[in-house]
Amino acid sequence: MKKTKQLKQMIHSQHLEFIMEAHSGLSAAIAEEAGFKGIWASGLSISAALGVRDNNEASWTQVLDVLEFMSDATSIPILLDGDTGYGNFNNARRLVKKLEQRQIAGVCIEDKLFPKTNSFIHAKAQPLADVGEFCGKIKAMKDTQSDEDFVVVARVEAFITGWGLEEALRRAEAYRQAGADAVLIHSKRSDTVEIESFMKEWGGRLPVVIVPTKYYTTPTARFQELGISLVIWANHNLRASIEAMKKVSSQIFQEKSLIHVESGVATLEEVFRLQRAEELQAAEQKYLPSTEKDSDERL
Amino acid sequence: MKKTKQLKQMIHSQHLEFIMEAHSGLSAAIAEEAGFKGIWASGLSISAALGVRDNNEASWTQVLDVLEFMSDATSIPILLDGDTGYGNFNNARRLVKKLEQRQIAGVCIEDKLFPKTNSFIHAKAQPLADVGEFCGKIKAMKDTQSDEDFVVVARVEAFITGWGLEEALRRAEAYRQAGADAVLIHSKRSDTVEIESFMKEWGGRLPVVIVPTKYYTTPTARFQELGISLVIWANHNLRASIEAMKKVSSQIFQEKSLIHVESGVATLEEVFRLQRAEELQAAEQKYLPSTEKDSDERL
Amino acid sequence: MKKTKQLKQMIHSQHLEFIMEAHSGLSAAIAEEAGFKGIWASGLSISAALGVRDNNEASWTQVLDVLEFMSDATSIPILLDGDTGYGNFNNARRLVKKLEQRQIAGVCIEDKLFPKTNSFIHAKAQPLADVGEFCGKIKAMKDTQSDEDFVVVARVEAFITGWGLEEALRRAEAYRQAGADAVLIHSKRSDTVEIESFMKEWGGRLPVVIVPTKYYTTPTARFQELGISLVIWANHNLRASIEAMKKVSSQIFQEKSLIHVESGVATLEEVFRLQRAEELQAAEQKYLPSTEKDSDERL
Amino acid sequence: MKKTKQLKQMIHSQHLEFIMEAHSGLSAAIAEEAGFKGIWASGLSISAALGVRDNNEASWTQVLDVLEFMSDATSIPILLDGDTGYGNFNNARRLVKKLEQRQIAGVCIEDKLFPKTNSFIHAKAQPLADVGEFCGKIKAMKDTQSDEDFVVVARVEAFITGWGLEEALRRAEAYRQAGADAVLIHSKRSDTVEIESFMKEWGGRLPVVIVPTKYYTTPTARFQELGISLVIWANHNLRASIEAMKKVSSQIFQEKSLIHVESGVATLEEVFRLQRAEELQAAEQKYLPSTEKDSDERL
Repeated sequence: MKKTKQLKQMIHSQHLEFIMEAHSGLSAAIAEEAGFKGIWASGLSISAALGVRDNNEASWTQVLDVLEFMSDATSIPILLDGDTGYGNFNNARRLVKKLEQRQIAGVCIEDKLFPKTNSFIHAKAQPLADVGEFCGKIKAMKDTQSDEDFVVVARVEAFITGWGLEEALRRAEAYRQAGADAVLIHSKRSDTVEIESFMKEWGGRLPVVIVPTKYYTTPTARFQELGISLVIWANHNLRASIEAMKKVSSQIFQEKSLIHVESGVATLEEVFRLQRAEELQAAEQKYLPSTEKDSDERL
Repeated sequence: MKKTKQLKQMIHSQHLEFIMEAHSGLSAAIAEEAGFKGIWASGLSISAALGVRDNNEASWTQVLDVLEFMSDATSIPILLDGDTGYGNFNNARRLVKKLEQRQIAGVCIEDKLFPKTNSFIHAKAQPLADVGEFCGKIKAMKDTQSDEDFVVVARVEAFITGWGLEEALRRAEAYRQAGADAVLIHSKRSDTVEIESFMKEWGGRLPVVIVPTKYYTTPTARFQELGISLVIWANHNLRASIEAMKKVSSQIFQEKSLIHVESGVATLEEVFRLQRAEELQAAEQKYLPSTEKDSDERL
Repeated sequence: MKKTKQLKQMIHSQHLEFIMEAHSGLSAAIAEEAGFKGIWASGLSISAALGVRDNNEASWTQVLDVLEFMSDATSIPILLDGDTGYGNFNNARRLVKKLEQRQIAGVCIEDKLFPKTNSFIHAKAQPLADVGEFCGKIKAMKDTQSDEDFVVVARVEAFITGWGLEEALRRAEAYRQAGADAVLIHSKRSDTVEIESFMKEWGGRLPVVIVPTKYYTTPTARFQELGISLVIWANHNLRASIEAMKKVSSQIFQEKSLIHVESGVATLEEVFRLQRAEELQAAEQKYLPSTEKDSDERL
Repeated sequence: MKKTKQLKQMIHSQHLEFIMEAHSGLSAAIAEEAGFKGIWASGLSISAALGVRDNNEASWTQVLDVLEFMSDATSIPILLDGDTGYGNFNNARRLVKKLEQRQIAGVCIEDKLFPKTNSFIHAKAQPLADVGEFCGKIKAMKDTQSDEDFVVVARVEAFITGWGLEEALRRAEAYRQAGADAVLIHSKRSDTVEIESFMKEWGGRLPVVIVPTKYYTTPTARFQELGISLVIWANHNLRASIEAMKKVSSQIFQEKSLIHVESGVATLEEVFRLQRAEELQAAEQKYLPSTEKDSDERL
């Protein structure tokens, strides 16, 4: 099944579904191996891994390059955290074409202004996009996709910027009418008060996606009860890798030795396995001249 | 002090020095924060992180893009694991120019054929570069560098491919005469028999660099005694991150919850700190119009 | 019709077909507008336009970036002049995947060694690829393509390097058996003696492609008589643009004025037309809020 | 002399100076050979050559890739037409770092909003940047440059958008106070009425740059009299190449032959010369093993 169709089915399934953050070909492959059916290509994680900030410091084509490696390394769908679409409707529709070429299954755009600031950094000061302009962007993206199953998720930042339920609902409805396949309701509260208020009024008009980074203590069963479609575990591969790399770098620096390190890290063989070194060795058997006599002299 | 000079001094210092693997802007910043004075931009790690194999599947400019992020995120010198130089002398000298532009302090090239295979994969089957051709490559690189302190390390693969001490010495001497700043003697044995045999005959003609990935149980004091200049901890940030991401992905997949995950991973604030979010907030105070009245209407 | 199918049909058509060199999105669009049914993405032209040499100085992904712009700007098939495939069979099969993602219809690889040298520069000194190795490369590429119509053309350099008819036939036949869709017989003679000798013995086993850059005085009807399938006009957009830019730069430098220049160059309106500025203006009408009242205040 | 210093001296020289548009490594090399002392890396030309529109369809790093080829191919300074700086002050200061790495001598930013529209397309409808915000951007750029001679030119679009002299002067003065090295006064009139009115009031507070694309019939001596510092011939290499490629593509398509084409285009030898093929041949003599006996067998 095409990756786009896989993602679309996840969003429309009766069950609560989950996608896992990745930020590189490697982390994407690990997320797939863990069992996940989809991947969240997090803007925060990708920027952090590159070594820059989540403020569109990396260009959109640099993000695209990361996505291409992620897509090539996996067979499950990837949903891109596409910030604002990296400009206006024209940049956003151009993005859709480029994502489809790279077999990215969908993109989530948020109603902020370019260049963006992460939603968890002094969020109240951030202005939101004009609703009409954002709806035009969604329409342009939906009109551009050549694969009918490509998914556009509209992320509502009204709670993040302190505008409350009414504005959140007004925007979600406008984005639905503009053609979005789902809405992502974002909240930075440590409880689900905002999410619950929204779900109560929303009434299932479109599938709802959430990111429980801040309200992570909420039992997942609660999300199911609320009628959420998709949960994004948004940055935990990145954060786990940071913790691990800080520890191992510090340990090796202090001990000037690998002796106590070796047993705690993946083996070299595991690195090679993740890179699918075996496939190449088999291919070499198949495609390289195997013996001297099979092959004539280089002229 | 320029990064090139920093690296050159490390190689020529009386003390045994250490550089730590990194494969991204993030891991490079972590290595620097841990206290290391230099970074090894590992070909294995960079390719693995991208999700491809260590066989020149990523193009040399894709590697360059990774290096640019690494260099921008750090203030300590980076030594690139430059495979074969990605082609002949002309590709290698072009590489030097591009590395200097990105403030990479040096490059290590190995006497294999393009496209390369990792030294720890069926190594004996790998042919070595012609000595004359490899020496021409070294000369071309040294003639090209515009910064006199840029470092070219010649990596000798004779032990890896089973050719023994005599060939290792012959090659190391040829590379020295061609202008290399140091030689890297590589061994895949789990002891230092090969390294010791080489050091005994070499007599300090040039600084020697080693990669004790396989003979990691050797006490570091032994390397000092042998007169080694620089030890490369070659892939441990990568391997630590793999282990961590496998665990966290698996745990979240199984538990469908972040509750037991949160305490084991870096906080969001730590992510923002590593991205230097504060610097941007201060810059916004400085460079953005602070109040409505400072700023006129958009025309 | 898919671009791959278009190209395949051209190669197998009963008529002599022609494709025109391009080296950028702009030149590709111009070739299409002129009426051509296909485009030759010349390695010489692309490297020259970038400002580097035809010796794999640009990385294969930098070439890919150029191709992506070319493909996006046109609706006719593009055949890439893919040098040696940029390495061994593994690099070549990876290339096929990347080309398919960018809707490139086919690739021509030549039996030289990486890094390549242009066939018209001291050609005799250039060694050829091992036949068995090159056949493995062709097989790997054909096994990799996911679109059955993707075209792999095998370019035979035997005449170029002075090996004569027998070697040319031996190689062409081997490449045919390995799965090539067509062979390109290259010659640097100013007549068609070599081409004719080949066509006489070849007997239509596979379609034959030629590049009459050096034997351009041969009437095209002769190519038809010989049973050639496809003629490549290999570098004339580039060479025309060089002549024009040299003249205009020189004239403006001398005259310090545009007065006598304006009438000889394309108008600005023509530039905008080629960029399809009108499509964007229409899209702005459709996707941007048209009046103040359609759009609410930015929050 | 450093490229930055060359450009700075041109801007401050007593003579009227001229820079020529280029959009690729090739066209840049041609502009230098024609005698020009500097190059204008035109946003319109670069986007048109890539095959996209002058509306930030190419990402800023894709533009950077073009610039790197241009810089590598030339020894004269390049002034980038940097649109709006590709975002806010943070994107603009990041751009400065990247330009300095690639030895680009300066950048011109214009007081429009991202994504930009070309000044010659329905210009009146385009809003201008907030003055305070734009001044902050200039300050951030000047604070970021590490080379004191790097040039930041502030482009005033007040005439283009119909705001008249007073607004042009207000903005120019604000940009001067913010630290700009020069102002570019843009006009789309076919005469110099706007330019003259500005120069009269400006009184040489900072060097002034102009782009006489629309008022090209004005004798150049008039610019000298007015006290202009630098004239940009903004897009004529591109427009000449378009005209030439349209003609040659059309002719070859019609004639199905090169016979009447060959004499009107640059020779292959000229292509190789522009690529500096000779330098590589000399380098091969120097760096490749010259005879069999110099070189041992590949192991």
